[in-house]
Amino acid sequence: MKKQIPAASIERLCAVFHVLEELEASGIDTVSSIEIGKRLGAASHNIRKDISYFGEIGNCRAGYDVRKLKNHLSAKLGLNKGKKACVVGLGRLGTAILNYGQLGQHGFAIVAGFDSNINKIETINTEIPLFPAHEIALVVKRKGIELAALTVPGQATQETVGKLIEGGIKGIVNFTPAVIKPTKNVFVRNIDLVGEFRNLSALSTLTI
Amino acid sequence: MKKQIPAASIERLCAVFHVLEELEASGIDTVSSIEIGKRLGAASHNIRKDISYFGEIGNCRAGYDVRKLKNHLSAKLGLNKGKKACVVGLGRLGTAILNYGQLGQHGFAIVAGFDSNINKIETINTEIPLFPAHEIALVVKRKGIELAALTVPGQATQETVGKLIEGGIKGIVNFTPAVIKPTKNVFVRNIDLVGEFRNLSALSTLTI
Repeated sequence: MKKQIPAASIERLCAVFHVLEELEASGIDTVSSIEIGKRLGAASHNIRKDISYFGEIGNCRAGYDVRKLKNHLSAKLGLNKGKKACVVGLGRLGTAILNYGQLGQHGFAIVAGFDSNINKIETINTEIPLFPAHEIALVVKRKGIELAALTVPGQATQETVGKLIEGGIKGIVNFTPAVIKPTKNVFVRNIDLVGEFRNLSALSTLTI
Repeated sequence: MKKQIPAASIERLCAVFHVLEELEASGIDTVSSIEIGKRLGAASHNIRKDISYFGEIGNCRAGYDVRKLKNHLSAKLGLNKGKKACVVGLGRLGTAILNYGQLGQHGFAIVAGFDSNINKIETINTEIPLFPAHEIALVVKRKGIELAALTVPGQATQETVGKLIEGGIKGIVNFTPAVIKPTKNVFVRNIDLVGEFRNLSALSTLTI
């Protein structure tokens, strides 16, 4: 551990960064921790505490300078540096992510795609270099890829994760139905579309 | 409000349900609240409390009967009843979700797709009926659609959400970069791919 900032705070600070982007796009110059908290459904004192991990910035009474705080967080969170990413599993979802322009615009360059089906690799029309799945560890290491979007079928998850870790991956956004547990050096975000639908369904069944 | 079960508990119970599915698929018959908690990164007493909202089931010392608890939660969370869903915005991601078989297999039938581009509607090859965006409210109401996956461009978000609400939608999985705030009767899950990459990036920058 370089610093003792809790993961929950890092996550919240990324959300604060997103709010600041939206405020800047709306032409808003200053914002209070109360307003940021409202938008995120978090207590304002938590927001202030999270921001204070990176030292003093702005004046809480006058509000934060949106642009200044945004740039400050961007530098401290390392969001101002480009990172290389890959997509593993080139079905419909994988292909959609491969071509999702927003990632590149925000500094996440997709530099490789992988699939176990060689025919698929040869027929997908993209400028991004595609490789067979057995080359994952090699290519991830060679290109210095730090992040991966995982869109393989559930049963291929564990094996694929092993290859990514072998290549030195640092973070995985997991779209498979299988839950991947984070390890010491690899962070994981599990995104489960069926799970999201279930949550909404259960919430509306039980509370409306 | 029908019952006073906190949203966080409902969310955790959906996650418990998912764990039970995985255990059942692995041929495991009984499970303790400690084991469930471990898999979800939650305290076992929280798991027991959440489950107890739906009355007594199983014996904590002997462990829960996986299949029995799964069916119990399924019924209580309303996951055993099919729900109708739609996809709004038929770009790559929208089309991927439109054809994502897992949703149908878990009781979420995609019964409509919408896009503002009429040409797109005519050229997409699918068995799911597609409609122009101006018919959203009408079709959602007529078909009794409860859930929507939103994959329109960011600037079209607010207007589209208005139409869905007009049609009586109950839940929205939001894939646009815009954050949608939940209303009293409409639940929202915001999924932000760029945000997920940022989280991973910041976590690995600050803690490895």
